[in-house]
Amino acid sequence: MEIIDTWGPWLRHVLELAATLAFTLSGVMVAARSRLDAVGVYAVAFVAAFGGGTLRDLLLDQRPFFWVRHVEYLWGVLALTTAAMLFMRQRHFEPTEKIIQLPDALGLGLFAAVGVDVASAAGMPALVAVLMGVVTPVFGGVLRDIVCNEIPTAFRDHRPYALCAFLGGWVYLGMEALGAPEWATLSGTVAITAGLRILALWRDWRLPLWQVH
Amino acid sequence: MEIIDTWGPWLRHVLELAATLAFTLSGVMVAARSRLDAVGVYAVAFVAAFGGGTLRDLLLDQRPFFWVRHVEYLWGVLALTTAAMLFMRQRHFEPTEKIIQLPDALGLGLFAAVGVDVASAAGMPALVAVLMGVVTPVFGGVLRDIVCNEIPTAFRDHRPYALCAFLGGWVYLGMEALGAPEWATLSGTVAITAGLRILALWRDWRLPLWQVH
Amino acid sequence: MEIIDTWGPWLRHVLELAATLAFTLSGVMVAARSRLDAVGVYAVAFVAAFGGGTLRDLLLDQRPFFWVRHVEYLWGVLALTTAAMLFMRQRHFEPTEKIIQLPDALGLGLFAAVGVDVASAAGMPALVAVLMGVVTPVFGGVLRDIVCNEIPTAFRDHRPYALCAFLGGWVYLGMEALGAPEWATLSGTVAITAGLRILALWRDWRLPLWQVH
Repeated sequence: MEIIDTWGPWLRHVLELAATLAFTLSGVMVAARSRLDAVGVYAVAFVAAFGGGTLRDLLLDQRPFFWVRHVEYLWGVLALTTAAMLFMRQRHFEPTEKIIQLPDALGLGLFAAVGVDVASAAGMPALVAVLMGVVTPVFGGVLRDIVCNEIPTAFRDHRPYALCAFLGGWVYLGMEALGAPEWATLSGTVAITAGLRILALWRDWRLPLWQVH
Repeated sequence: MEIIDTWGPWLRHVLELAATLAFTLSGVMVAARSRLDAVGVYAVAFVAAFGGGTLRDLLLDQRPFFWVRHVEYLWGVLALTTAAMLFMRQRHFEPTEKIIQLPDALGLGLFAAVGVDVASAAGMPALVAVLMGVVTPVFGGVLRDIVCNEIPTAFRDHRPYALCAFLGGWVYLGMEALGAPEWATLSGTVAITAGLRILALWRDWRLPLWQVH
Repeated sequence: MEIIDTWGPWLRHVLELAATLAFTLSGVMVAARSRLDAVGVYAVAFVAAFGGGTLRDLLLDQRPFFWVRHVEYLWGVLALTTAAMLFMRQRHFEPTEKIIQLPDALGLGLFAAVGVDVASAAGMPALVAVLMGVVTPVFGGVLRDIVCNEIPTAFRDHRPYALCAFLGGWVYLGMEALGAPEWATLSGTVAITAGLRILALWRDWRLPLWQVH
């Protein structure tokens, strides 16, 4: 069990890298749908992958940024973007909106878990920690969609998105309060957040629209 | 008089809270007009209420952020947004553009005064302090309108908006230089900034448009 | 030679001021084309001139910001914007897209050189330094175009823009590694970045668009 207990910080790294790569993929796909040029595809991949985490580090005053501490993340996103572009062109792969939602939902869960984890480790109050878990994935996706000149998914499809991260954040804090080890808390948050989002898409759950009458 | 002299810091708090709540209300109303879903309404209320002050704290390197020091602000915005949504649905209250302008003008004056005050207390040069008084209210409103997918009011209606905050900022610095107590400086700036904006709306003052010929 | 060797820091200042003024001019021209009101013109000039450098300083954790250390930059932009507006109105000067591209290309080269230089002096890894040289000019231009409600030039015209700054950044690091003095490295980067951009416009080089079939 002792070995598993020290998994925590290491697991956070793995999850953050996975989140970064998932959002890179979603960025490449959205850029491909928007018919951007090659430089535009890299730009979208970068803002999707690093936008949310950078805002989180700014708001939590965590320096240096995670992509300065781990320059290999930057190279990883460069390499994955290049590989994904070449693969998609060779296979004539046309990403549909459905396929894009998969890496997007995965990245949502991963970034939400890492976001709450970083904020909680920095000693933030509960509500601030949960909001960091919401901001980290949502901001990257919003930047990605704005650069592609689309209305952000988070605001357009009326199925729960930020809400999944919000609920996942409280699950994290609940498990932490109950004394669960960090690896369980982290993976539980990823599973619940991404699972809720996928369920919402599959079951077509819709948030109530504002209606005055 | 001694009692009144120590009002300064306390008054800044009250004004900041009032500004946050005024912009929350304007956010809920703009979101209602844009027919966002429930999560969208909260998102708009939050960016409107906290966007400008966060940018100000970032630019002035003031940490922790005001909403980390005062988590009750976050809860307050959550509660007011919920209450406003329920009230507006129950009363079938349809916010017109005119009604939205009232909390918006009030928030403009309040955030302008607090912005100059914080920057001035941080020892910024005069022009930087005045620009902080402009940036604090304007940025929150711009974010609010962008999230609602509207052209920001600050750019669209050609009636003075940022200009009122700019003039109010110089009034603040002038009163401070003349040795006026903080409570008078703060409330004078609020009154002049919000008053100018309301006058501009009421009298339909218009800024000169760019015309080449 | 000793005199020339101490040119480095001084030259960086001159280049940064020149970059700020070049982007101010491009901002005024884009704002004029968009028929903004007078306050809008100032707003666009300010975000164009200071947006990129502020993001760079934020990401590199350089405080105080360059416009707090040098308040004369703020006054300079105020003065140049006023002068340019008066001049353009008096001469009935209607800026064409072609003319706007000139200060824009110049600012691109200048901000790219200063960006890499600042990041490199702050001890950043190579890829981070190069990306700072890309972000500094691109972000200011993107903000400028967003405020004017246009699709950013960097994404719209499919001619190399960010790519020129990216290549210029590697030239900087290459010359630095070869032991070239700072003045040569800086001016070489400006010349290559701005030169590439102007060549790209003149020769109508186009980036490959994403094409699946």
